[in-house]
Amino acid sequence: MLPKITTRWRITRISDGTAALQEDDIATEYPLTVRLGVEEFATIVCSPTDLEEMTIGFLASEGVIRSASEIKELRIDEERGFVYVELMHEESTSKDDYARRFIGSCCGKSRQFYFQNDVRTARTSMSRTTITPAECTSLMRLLQSSSSEFKLTGGVHNAALCTPTELIAVRADIGRHNALDKLFGYALQQRLPITDKIIAFSGRLSSEVVLKAAKIGVGVMLSKSAPTDLALKLAGDLGITCVGFIRGSEMNVYTHSHRIATEGA
Amino acid sequence: MLPKITTRWRITRISDGTAALQEDDIATEYPLTVRLGVEEFATIVCSPTDLEEMTIGFLASEGVIRSASEIKELRIDEERGFVYVELMHEESTSKDDYARRFIGSCCGKSRQFYFQNDVRTARTSMSRTTITPAECTSLMRLLQSSSSEFKLTGGVHNAALCTPTELIAVRADIGRHNALDKLFGYALQQRLPITDKIIAFSGRLSSEVVLKAAKIGVGVMLSKSAPTDLALKLAGDLGITCVGFIRGSEMNVYTHSHRIATEGA
Repeated sequence: MLPKITTRWRITRISDGTAALQEDDIATEYPLTVRLGVEEFATIVCSPTDLEEMTIGFLASEGVIRSASEIKELRIDEERGFVYVELMHEESTSKDDYARRFIGSCCGKSRQFYFQNDVRTARTSMSRTTITPAECTSLMRLLQSSSSEFKLTGGVHNAALCTPTELIAVRADIGRHNALDKLFGYALQQRLPITDKIIAFSGRLSSEVVLKAAKIGVGVMLSKSAPTDLALKLAGDLGITCVGFIRGSEMNVYTHSHRIATEGA
Repeated sequence: MLPKITTRWRITRISDGTAALQEDDIATEYPLTVRLGVEEFATIVCSPTDLEEMTIGFLASEGVIRSASEIKELRIDEERGFVYVELMHEESTSKDDYARRFIGSCCGKSRQFYFQNDVRTARTSMSRTTITPAECTSLMRLLQSSSSEFKLTGGVHNAALCTPTELIAVRADIGRHNALDKLFGYALQQRLPITDKIIAFSGRLSSEVVLKAAKIGVGVMLSKSAPTDLALKLAGDLGITCVGFIRGSEMNVYTHSHRIATEGA
């Protein structure tokens, strides 16, 4: 049986120098080791929910599979924290290839990927979706009100796959990338058309997050947090609209602002 | 030459539906590939500061070295983002050993390490340091006021090595672990006695953060954020005092509260 997403813990609560014992809910951290055939592929430290989706999303993100149908068997040992995956095709690529840094031959180009698997899997967005600032604000509010675990523990990131007006699926995890992998796995399992979708995200927009969005195939990333410069360079190059610091009706559009339908600018 | 810690970026600032162009400072994300002799060891995505300290802290944290004196040569190619490290001793351990999951033979024990290198490097704290709640509050305030990059960009984590009353060194990074590795490298280079020190940290207390604290050798971790359950189990086992959600004069003590000098409880 999987542990719960939160765990009770006895804490000493201090307020103005005075201590009192009480109980609190703490985010559970669960290590899941992915075995691919006879090989140990990776260990993911995650919140213990949606492990099948996360594994599928992770393998797709790493370039091991392109669709859920490439998986012959997926078996989870919840007690020991292992997931055993058998693929339809032989996995011929060495694990080392996935983690090796990719150095492009042209240094002057703006597109810089870290790893060889990113070159194979990150796609340039052709999305024609547009969204208004009011819809951005509304999606972030829906994300926040749907994420009960975060309120309890303060330690979980949330990601939602959305249309401009609705959340389709919300996933939570202590790891930012895992929340996105869970959405990726969901979309692959459901065979959802993805180009016109949007991701709303509680965490920072790092280069890895933008690469993940490009792999999933969305054209717009919304976040309440800050981006990094490399994330924005990649988003610029991969055709992804990044909107950050969404707080109430205020927000910053960093890249491809043509998808944000405003007056002015 | 290293890029700056922040980069100027043209953004579209939207406020109540109206858009205006302006400039903003964005946290720089810099990939640094560590080469150990002839081998590519890892690529660290980081803020471009204190790279020598970070490399030394990272290698110590991975169990490759135990002191700064084990490094024969360390050369940084800032343009290409490579650091070339030569050790005094032959590095005989295969890279694969560092990332392989460690499964203890006894399942009932509370101590669970993920990786084999953690078993070699994480130490149980024997620290006799005590600190008052007022000192915890004061250290977190000092950390916050010292971290100018965070205010500018909203995207950087901060960590400080402290006595109960003063910050000794503050390091910032977009990656939580990097900020701690920079402190670790600093402590190793300065040959600082570490057992009586405290780390004040802006980020969440995950298991990896607590393991890092145990490797650095401190007995008290202060954070303004939430912990995870596995972090607390490890902290309990490794003798580390975890204080989280430090906000003003309020805070939660999760483990080894004997180091927090309060009235009551």
